Amino acid sequence: MLLCDIGNSSYHFLDKSTDYKKSVQNFNPQSMQEKIYYICVNVKIKNILEKLDNWINLEEYFSKKNYYSTMGIDRICACEAIKDGVIIDAGSAITVDVVNAGVFQGGFIYPGIKAMSETYKNISSSLEYPFNYNLNLNALAKNSRDAISYGYLKTLHREVISHKKDIFLTGGDADKLCNIFPDAKINQYLIFDGMKNILQRVDAR
Amino acid sequence: MLLCDIGNSSYHFLDKSTDYKKSVQNFNPQSMQEKIYYICVNVKIKNILEKLDNWINLEEYFSKKNYYSTMGIDRICACEAIKDGVIIDAGSAITVDVVNAGVFQGGFIYPGIKAMSETYKNISSSLEYPFNYNLNLNALAKNSRDAISYGYLKTLHREVISHKKDIFLTGGDADKLCNIFPDAKINQYLIFDGMKNILQRVDAR
Repeated sequence: MLLCDIGNSSYHFLDKSTDYKKSVQNFNPQSMQEKIYYICVNVKIKNILEKLDNWINLEEYFSKKNYYSTMGIDRICACEAIKDGVIIDAGSAITVDVVNAGVFQGGFIYPGIKAMSETYKNISSSLEYPFNYNLNLNALAKNSRDAISYGYLKTLHREVISHKKDIFLTGGDADKLCNIFPDAKINQYLIFDGMKNILQRVDAR
Repeated sequence: MLLCDIGNSSYHFLDKSTDYKKSVQNFNPQSMQEKIYYICVNVKIKNILEKLDNWINLEEYFSKKNYYSTMGIDRICACEAIKDGVIIDAGSAITVDVVNAGVFQGGFIYPGIKAMSETYKNISSSLEYPFNYNLNLNALAKNSRDAISYGYLKTLHREVISHKKDIFLTGGDADKLCNIFPDAKINQYLIFDGMKNILQRVDAR
């Protein structure tokens, strides 16, 4: 079974246990003959795929009533992957979602690492530092680099751990955040796990 | 006694109990004849003022050993204004500093309201909302506007209140943050208070 998670920059495929990416700019979805179950946050590509019989949009297969109308389908799929926990999906934005006993409790959106780095730099050139991921989270900052790192990372950390749940880390910048969340489970297949769970429930109906 | 706090955009004067601002672009400091005690984070203006005998830089009047070398003199002056508490100075950046029994404990730098609003908008046009300052801080977000507002404001709030101290709110955006920190003391003269405290200590020597 072939799964595909389509974002703004790439098609992310999972073929059994092998994943690979294709750029949205030069991949032609008509080149695929087999059946592909997908989710897609890219409106332009979604319109193309709707016309192709072998591309099956999983979004239509399940109830979104536990979620909210403008919530990205990728966030919803990640939530469908777990029964209980906090999901941190670290990409261009960092989305944080809380699931309790299988039910989405709400979440929030925080700027991604690249975006936040630009933000500090644009406020003042004196704040142009790479974030310190080895920051001591137990001490307020006493230098400029730590001051922006604490502002960005400690505030996020304190909010996430306040929910007292297992932490699941996914997305392109998960490897950068794992120092801040050393107990988090890193799972780059979380969205695919959610897609599989949805498919299983569809089959069981 | 005339005090002046000079930033990147304006000269902020305090003449006894009256304050007023002059734009850095068209104010000529040589037009002033009286003695002015100032602090200045604007390097270009600092160089001009050094040549003027009636402009007295307070930065040279006190020990910075409790602070760190790249910390802005405006932040230091705000810290000198209080004995105990958390100071939130909400400008182009939001600086947060903790003072315990008269000693600076450290702090952090968070993006200001305008900068953070731009950040979300630049990540995705679907995140272009004004922040909701009446956000329910006790519930995770279930719509896009609250999701960015929670990401920006609740994370800051949780960190600030964790220090269990009185909160002092100053800076141009203090009025926007006062809903989030309803118990905070708003004091737009905090930096001037710090300057006065330093002057008193100098006189007492």
